[in-house]
Amino acid sequence: MAFTSSNAEGPVDFFNTFDLEKMAQDVVPKGAFGYIASGAGDTFTMHENIRSFNHKLIVPHTLMDVEDPDTSTVFAGESLPAPMIMAPVAAHKLANNQGEVASAKGVADYGSLYTISSYSSVDLPEVTKALHGAPEWFQFYYSKDDGINRHIMDRVKEQGIKAIVLTADAMVGGNRETDARNGFTFPIPLPIVQEYLPDSVGKSMDYVYKSAKQKLSPKDVEYIAQYSGLPVYVKGPQSKEDVERALSAGAAGIWVTNHGGRQLDGGPASFDSLQEVAKAVDHRVPVIFDSGIRRGQHVFKAIASGADVVALGRPAIYGLALGGSVGVKQVFEKLQAELKLVMQLAGTQTVEDIKHFELRDNPYDPSFDTSNDLKLV
Amino acid sequence: MAFTSSNAEGPVDFFNTFDLEKMAQDVVPKGAFGYIASGAGDTFTMHENIRSFNHKLIVPHTLMDVEDPDTSTVFAGESLPAPMIMAPVAAHKLANNQGEVASAKGVADYGSLYTISSYSSVDLPEVTKALHGAPEWFQFYYSKDDGINRHIMDRVKEQGIKAIVLTADAMVGGNRETDARNGFTFPIPLPIVQEYLPDSVGKSMDYVYKSAKQKLSPKDVEYIAQYSGLPVYVKGPQSKEDVERALSAGAAGIWVTNHGGRQLDGGPASFDSLQEVAKAVDHRVPVIFDSGIRRGQHVFKAIASGADVVALGRPAIYGLALGGSVGVKQVFEKLQAELKLVMQLAGTQTVEDIKHFELRDNPYDPSFDTSNDLKLV
Amino acid sequence: MAFTSSNAEGPVDFFNTFDLEKMAQDVVPKGAFGYIASGAGDTFTMHENIRSFNHKLIVPHTLMDVEDPDTSTVFAGESLPAPMIMAPVAAHKLANNQGEVASAKGVADYGSLYTISSYSSVDLPEVTKALHGAPEWFQFYYSKDDGINRHIMDRVKEQGIKAIVLTADAMVGGNRETDARNGFTFPIPLPIVQEYLPDSVGKSMDYVYKSAKQKLSPKDVEYIAQYSGLPVYVKGPQSKEDVERALSAGAAGIWVTNHGGRQLDGGPASFDSLQEVAKAVDHRVPVIFDSGIRRGQHVFKAIASGADVVALGRPAIYGLALGGSVGVKQVFEKLQAELKLVMQLAGTQTVEDIKHFELRDNPYDPSFDTSNDLKLV
Amino acid sequence: MAFTSSNAEGPVDFFNTFDLEKMAQDVVPKGAFGYIASGAGDTFTMHENIRSFNHKLIVPHTLMDVEDPDTSTVFAGESLPAPMIMAPVAAHKLANNQGEVASAKGVADYGSLYTISSYSSVDLPEVTKALHGAPEWFQFYYSKDDGINRHIMDRVKEQGIKAIVLTADAMVGGNRETDARNGFTFPIPLPIVQEYLPDSVGKSMDYVYKSAKQKLSPKDVEYIAQYSGLPVYVKGPQSKEDVERALSAGAAGIWVTNHGGRQLDGGPASFDSLQEVAKAVDHRVPVIFDSGIRRGQHVFKAIASGADVVALGRPAIYGLALGGSVGVKQVFEKLQAELKLVMQLAGTQTVEDIKHFELRDNPYDPSFDTSNDLKLV
Repeated sequence: MAFTSSNAEGPVDFFNTFDLEKMAQDVVPKGAFGYIASGAGDTFTMHENIRSFNHKLIVPHTLMDVEDPDTSTVFAGESLPAPMIMAPVAAHKLANNQGEVASAKGVADYGSLYTISSYSSVDLPEVTKALHGAPEWFQFYYSKDDGINRHIMDRVKEQGIKAIVLTADAMVGGNRETDARNGFTFPIPLPIVQEYLPDSVGKSMDYVYKSAKQKLSPKDVEYIAQYSGLPVYVKGPQSKEDVERALSAGAAGIWVTNHGGRQLDGGPASFDSLQEVAKAVDHRVPVIFDSGIRRGQHVFKAIASGADVVALGRPAIYGLALGGSVGVKQVFEKLQAELKLVMQLAGTQTVEDIKHFELRDNPYDPSFDTSNDLKLV
Repeated sequence: MAFTSSNAEGPVDFFNTFDLEKMAQDVVPKGAFGYIASGAGDTFTMHENIRSFNHKLIVPHTLMDVEDPDTSTVFAGESLPAPMIMAPVAAHKLANNQGEVASAKGVADYGSLYTISSYSSVDLPEVTKALHGAPEWFQFYYSKDDGINRHIMDRVKEQGIKAIVLTADAMVGGNRETDARNGFTFPIPLPIVQEYLPDSVGKSMDYVYKSAKQKLSPKDVEYIAQYSGLPVYVKGPQSKEDVERALSAGAAGIWVTNHGGRQLDGGPASFDSLQEVAKAVDHRVPVIFDSGIRRGQHVFKAIASGADVVALGRPAIYGLALGGSVGVKQVFEKLQAELKLVMQLAGTQTVEDIKHFELRDNPYDPSFDTSNDLKLV
Repeated sequence: MAFTSSNAEGPVDFFNTFDLEKMAQDVVPKGAFGYIASGAGDTFTMHENIRSFNHKLIVPHTLMDVEDPDTSTVFAGESLPAPMIMAPVAAHKLANNQGEVASAKGVADYGSLYTISSYSSVDLPEVTKALHGAPEWFQFYYSKDDGINRHIMDRVKEQGIKAIVLTADAMVGGNRETDARNGFTFPIPLPIVQEYLPDSVGKSMDYVYKSAKQKLSPKDVEYIAQYSGLPVYVKGPQSKEDVERALSAGAAGIWVTNHGGRQLDGGPASFDSLQEVAKAVDHRVPVIFDSGIRRGQHVFKAIASGADVVALGRPAIYGLALGGSVGVKQVFEKLQAELKLVMQLAGTQTVEDIKHFELRDNPYDPSFDTSNDLKLV
Repeated sequence: MAFTSSNAEGPVDFFNTFDLEKMAQDVVPKGAFGYIASGAGDTFTMHENIRSFNHKLIVPHTLMDVEDPDTSTVFAGESLPAPMIMAPVAAHKLANNQGEVASAKGVADYGSLYTISSYSSVDLPEVTKALHGAPEWFQFYYSKDDGINRHIMDRVKEQGIKAIVLTADAMVGGNRETDARNGFTFPIPLPIVQEYLPDSVGKSMDYVYKSAKQKLSPKDVEYIAQYSGLPVYVKGPQSKEDVERALSAGAAGIWVTNHGGRQLDGGPASFDSLQEVAKAVDHRVPVIFDSGIRRGQHVFKAIASGADVVALGRPAIYGLALGGSVGVKQVFEKLQAELKLVMQLAGTQTVEDIKHFELRDNPYDPSFDTSNDLKLV
């Protein structure tokens, strides 16, 4: 029997993005939900991604004009309503039968930039069409076959896609035991890479990864840039050394991520790495950040730590599961609203103000216990 | 149907202020209780407010006279039984149908100073009357309309109010999801600000905040001081920079607060900010502290960290809910008794001694687990 | 109806001192057990007393002779089987109807030194008799009346008591809410102090404390030493300053304690203060340590941190409740056996070796979670 | 009735080594399982062994060739499929009636090195035979009788055993309360040491240890090396001083361990000691590490911290309980697979690469709470 997921399309009632995760579990089939929500190994790094935002604290500025802060920003030449874009996430049909058509429409309706994954469950032209003119980037899992790579790049250029994001760190699937325990295999085709991966249905994520090129080098960055004529953003560097490697190869920007804790368990929180990467980049190129954004205060702290924009993964996918394109748009709107409120409370008027805002280090335990709390709702 | 809350008036049986919170939940309507007890966002900052007192430790002085310590202090020209005053809290009728009339009477009976909120649910003259001569301060949410502001200040002066507290940081409501989940809207009028906010009933806190002026600057401090002829305490600074801004504008004192964790989640504990603010102020003006006081040891630690007095919010409101004016008085008395005991155990005789008492830094985890404890009561 | 507690006398089955606490709860009346087991305020300091031993780690020495370590020591001229003595604890009849007669016999049978509290529930001569020649010290809660003090000291000398321990920090009862919640009042007379406190039965601990002198100074240390001709150990200093005050007044030794977390909540763990006190004392006089000893490794760590002996309070009292004199002896034997094992595993042969053993600082979280552990017993 | 344990032989279904512990509990008799799984005292050190791996973080290298990393290594002249060998563990018949015959076969089938314990429940020749040529080391609990020691060494040499591991720190059993509570005594003979311990059946571990020599010195290392002509690895040093003692005595290598937290509670995590030992050794001799390895990332972090190989204890024994020789092999294979994946994700191609990989210090709380997690499986 063919795999089907949620058919939702329309407004979702929720109070924060944590709600969405719980609600999405009810509408997405178990194996697919486990694939989306779980992390690698002991999930230490996945949990750190969120807790780490408490490593830095926002000390408000007072006696400020906070009437109507402007969350908008210009990033990579695009005007965005807030410093938030769509992260590349594989196979949106796992969450909603409309797949990338709905998520693209949601991001476009919101007014932001969409990054399509190589492992999209909808082919490039349909996604581009759904974006109705909104800016599109392409995340590239490189094939072992250069002819196929060139063909994919040709198609990418045909769509008017504006940049390529090269995943530089995770050319192999993480140790996702939830998928193993659920016996999860890929239930749907991945049309963009079907030339080098014609038979993804029924295969493990491991198999999917192994079909891609697992030997990368700075030369690949150079080649992609040269062949495509597009800016190449390198996704993965978490250290000074890796920033230099990527920039020497001509990277147009650095994308800090640990794949939402789905790849290497036992590594640092993405937010903790952001501090080091931003210092190393030192404004030479833009910095994009993902992994752990669940709150407006997280967006604020990431921007104040050197990111130019953040990218949303799981929260947007939960919105997609629960409300289709409208749900995706609502997630961006919700986080924008939260960000705006944080800006007001912190005494900042513009994204530029956030970039110059100095966070205070928190030397204390970043976790907290709510087990004795009263039930208030 | 009109909103009604507790009608309590009379002595309350309790052993500490944590008890009061649990007991108050039984007598205050759910939405109102949620409004009072809840915090912003993930409530990290709200929890830190209390836990942070464990960041500093009291090492007792021994071989001391501890027979009968004197908790009294003179603050801003007022003789107080202990370094504790009433914090401005909105709409006391949410907790007790007597509203600010009872809390004012309680504070006056105890012998301390009362700060009335702009969002009082009882008008100025009645509150002043209930204070029967006790010192009164006015917390000002500024209107967008200067004529209204002048009118309010005229009324404030008419009552013989001695100082104005200008809220400088929170000119917008925090992200209080408990209120959203409960569908809580303001069920009662706010008479002091009715000129610029005539229709608060049925409105969200958000709406209430938006009616006030959200563009503040040091010039406003100067103007209020000049027009009113009253000392202006600036409430909100948590950093050296903000202390200087406020003092340059002529602030008569600095009030350290994070609104009980109700406004910006992801910011520091108020007690942690106190250390920095007190160092920056360096005794040039008085320092008032709120957010997190639940114990006599908290009062001791705040004074030893540079506060001249602390202000009570939630605990007093819970006392109000449970015992009206008597309950409020009991809360002050309880904390004074606890403070006196801590003074004895620490080997200090006067509030001045506390101010010169050096706390020890605690480099270890400030939380602790009681889940394996025996049940002793 | 007169108060009665356990009548136990004989061997107890237990595996560690934590077991004893749980078992004692079944044989001691609720109010009395609460008085013994509970701590002050939020019990943060009480919990820190035990957790703080994880702040220092024992790195074993290898390739050592560990065959038969010698736990014995000479302390204050007394040969002890291990560096452990009996701490002064009020009113042993709360735990066992035999009271101090049984605990004294147990300590004497074990071969150690007994400190009798001013608030003993058995009078001096009977306790001395029960000690059948074992060394005895007297913990002094000073009366406001110097005549009474002299009379008590006369009686103390008459018994051949060898030293006086002056409690210098806790001349007032802590905020023990368990007692308040249980409505606990003292159910038995306190014969040693009956001259200045004739009517303790039915009174709160607070009342008991208030009957003692609450104005102490270094001059009192001098006077007691001069009048009694006995060495005076000052119990309470936790800082360099207080060590100097006590030593200048002629203290024969320093006793580090925070009364098992029963007095001042919000202060440091006794073990953490030991480090500072031992450094300040610098071997000029002996150092005694209590508050938190539950394990042989705790004894080892306290000795390695500068204590000459440790004193046992609650664990001995639980042994008393469960096994009378035999139970008390078993507690000392159990901790001696654990200590000997730690000495073997650490590669130390004598108490002197422990004194020169360097512990490693633990910069990490000293607590740990066992909630996911398998059930092995 | 004679003791019997699991008879399992064949493949085991599991997703990680934590699963194995839970599953093994069902097939191993309670007392024996408690002996295997439990730790000393409060089990603080046992828990730290695993949590401490979070003190160091793996920051991936990007744009690397990760296609097919080589986990193999040459250690002590032996080619191993991965830097993992079998740790000496007493009495495998407690876990599987086949005992060391099956574990030896499993390790040999996997292709690694086997360390047989003095307290093996199968005699030397049978174990050597089961190894069918795979390299074998002998862990030596020294007898008090030198004649017996020489006889044991003669037998060891007869088997072609390649090295002796001298346990230098734990010549006495730890305080394993689980065993005491379960009334666990040794149910099986220990043939290798039967000359000095003829009657182990029905005896406590304590008795077993006491039969061995408990006075060790560097001279013993020298003597064993000289008499046997074999390299002697000293097992136990956790500090710079002890490393020097062992190396001065001619140790062929240092084995860092705390016996899985079964001996001294209150000591450091083995992984934390590894950092100090490796620095002290400074590549003069090989370093072996055990205590806490449960994941491929743990192997990676240990190697990156200075270990040449890690040794597996409990996980292999659980594999033995559940699948006999096949289960043991599967455990090594599973951890090798995890290690390979970590190498890919970290951007390392060889074990030599791992040795030069710099881990990032984690200054934050290494534990994390999963109590609010969704149930995904």
